[in-house]
Amino acid sequence: MTQLYDRVALIGLGLIASSMAYAMREKGLAGEIVGTARSAETRDIAREIGFCDEIFDTAAEAVKDADLVILAVPVGAMSAIAQEIGPHLAAGATVSDVGSVKREVVEAVQPHLPDHVHFIPSHPIAGTEHSGPRSGFAELFQNRFLLLTPLEGTDPEQVAKLTSLWTEMGSNVEQMPVDHHDLVLAVTSHTPHLIAYTMVGVADDLRRVTDSEVIKYSAAGFRDFTRIAASDPTMWRDVFLHNKEATLEVLGRFTEELFALQRAIRTGDGDQLFDYFSHTRAIRRGIIEAGQDTSAPDFGRIGTKK
Amino acid sequence: MTQLYDRVALIGLGLIASSMAYAMREKGLAGEIVGTARSAETRDIAREIGFCDEIFDTAAEAVKDADLVILAVPVGAMSAIAQEIGPHLAAGATVSDVGSVKREVVEAVQPHLPDHVHFIPSHPIAGTEHSGPRSGFAELFQNRFLLLTPLEGTDPEQVAKLTSLWTEMGSNVEQMPVDHHDLVLAVTSHTPHLIAYTMVGVADDLRRVTDSEVIKYSAAGFRDFTRIAASDPTMWRDVFLHNKEATLEVLGRFTEELFALQRAIRTGDGDQLFDYFSHTRAIRRGIIEAGQDTSAPDFGRIGTKK
Repeated sequence: MTQLYDRVALIGLGLIASSMAYAMREKGLAGEIVGTARSAETRDIAREIGFCDEIFDTAAEAVKDADLVILAVPVGAMSAIAQEIGPHLAAGATVSDVGSVKREVVEAVQPHLPDHVHFIPSHPIAGTEHSGPRSGFAELFQNRFLLLTPLEGTDPEQVAKLTSLWTEMGSNVEQMPVDHHDLVLAVTSHTPHLIAYTMVGVADDLRRVTDSEVIKYSAAGFRDFTRIAASDPTMWRDVFLHNKEATLEVLGRFTEELFALQRAIRTGDGDQLFDYFSHTRAIRRGIIEAGQDTSAPDFGRIGTKK
Repeated sequence: MTQLYDRVALIGLGLIASSMAYAMREKGLAGEIVGTARSAETRDIAREIGFCDEIFDTAAEAVKDADLVILAVPVGAMSAIAQEIGPHLAAGATVSDVGSVKREVVEAVQPHLPDHVHFIPSHPIAGTEHSGPRSGFAELFQNRFLLLTPLEGTDPEQVAKLTSLWTEMGSNVEQMPVDHHDLVLAVTSHTPHLIAYTMVGVADDLRRVTDSEVIKYSAAGFRDFTRIAASDPTMWRDVFLHNKEATLEVLGRFTEELFALQRAIRTGDGDQLFDYFSHTRAIRRGIIEAGQDTSAPDFGRIGTKK
């Protein structure tokens, strides 16, 4: 039991915040955990479940006397929250966020924070397709990466302390520059999500193939896309609006490549297809070796392998 | 124990054929199971594992006296196999296949078969990203759909018997017309696979984001794509070459839709993005209710939910 912070305030009580609350409690990392959410319904559910010691009606009240404040709201809501809490933050407090985009969060949050707090942007590379206060669990961050994008001049001691918190919750903490973060995530997260949403939308739209056929025969590949396309719509709308440039850049590369393969199909160039499909196997092996996915067939969804 | 066929010949010994062998044995559905594969290495592995009673060096030998012959080779190899086995098929035998494409398989196989056999094209909507004779397991077809696309004039008794075989192996058997099959699968399988291959290829190519970063931060969505992009390259090359029209049609719809979302990102139209992302959630609920996927977060890859 290493108590790192006396009072942690969670602003927003969805999957990430509730999972943090469970993980911090399990390890005794925080003296007190308090929270707030914009919706009264979410606050009531959080009170009922009890993963925080106290739930406040406003962010301004929640951050009072907190030495760590975590902004866990959709990226588009960060600016208003920062503006609200700015005047109420304790001297020496650390403010961090868990947004999937970093450049625009920094620009939205930093101007509203007083000089006497430490702002350390962060992003846990962890999540599920479920959202809301009922979806959290302590193991969410186990063996997942946590990216810190500290700004110039940030107190190294405070960065080290926040690093310890995430390490204790199970994460592998790494640092990278703000803009590089946004490009990396455009590749490993934002573009894949947009493509999954699109594919699911197309399937839903195709009139000759009924919904029920799309659902029944989904085990042939399609169902994998539906998981990430079931993610929180508000969160993802904000991600795309706030990581516009990097997402559009990667999307441009994607369509270029897709057109090349489409042309190979049209012209019957089997060699090009075979070569392309052969070299994409290596990445999956790397991901499994890095402990970032299971090697069980079909993500282990099917019964035991003989 | 209901023995339905006296002697089943499996042509090709990959994931599907080996899984069929395990499933038929478990239920005593076949008197004898024999097999063959083009590669000597595959035949040796199959002999070593022993999921067939006998492994022959050629398809011509394997089909002798069989009352059921299953063509379980890549779609592009079907024609040559049909030509080879045609003269050796027993009178009254049923010939079926497990190809992911139906129109071109029918055209490739049917002309080479003698009139005294029953040709019933089929397609199990089941599989994993693993391939080869070591990847099979008896449960692969449990609660998965099996599509039969019988041709006009096929003996209904033989269709019923093949239906029983698949039902006993755990499948839900349905029938549909050949061309409709190819469109449905272009939506639920072929296009999703091409998109996954493309996304993984793009990630591999982006020089500023190193391979190691793509791998480390893959849990943010990308890793889901790498599973289907690890599927057998020969099989998938053949699928695209032989279901060209339907795949290109669905791809056309996909890029149209993707461009619309890309435009919404560029112009900052958050409402359009939110609406799109909201309506794609319903399909996943349908798939889970239909028993075609798990409701566990992250396909159940993470530890127990609290």
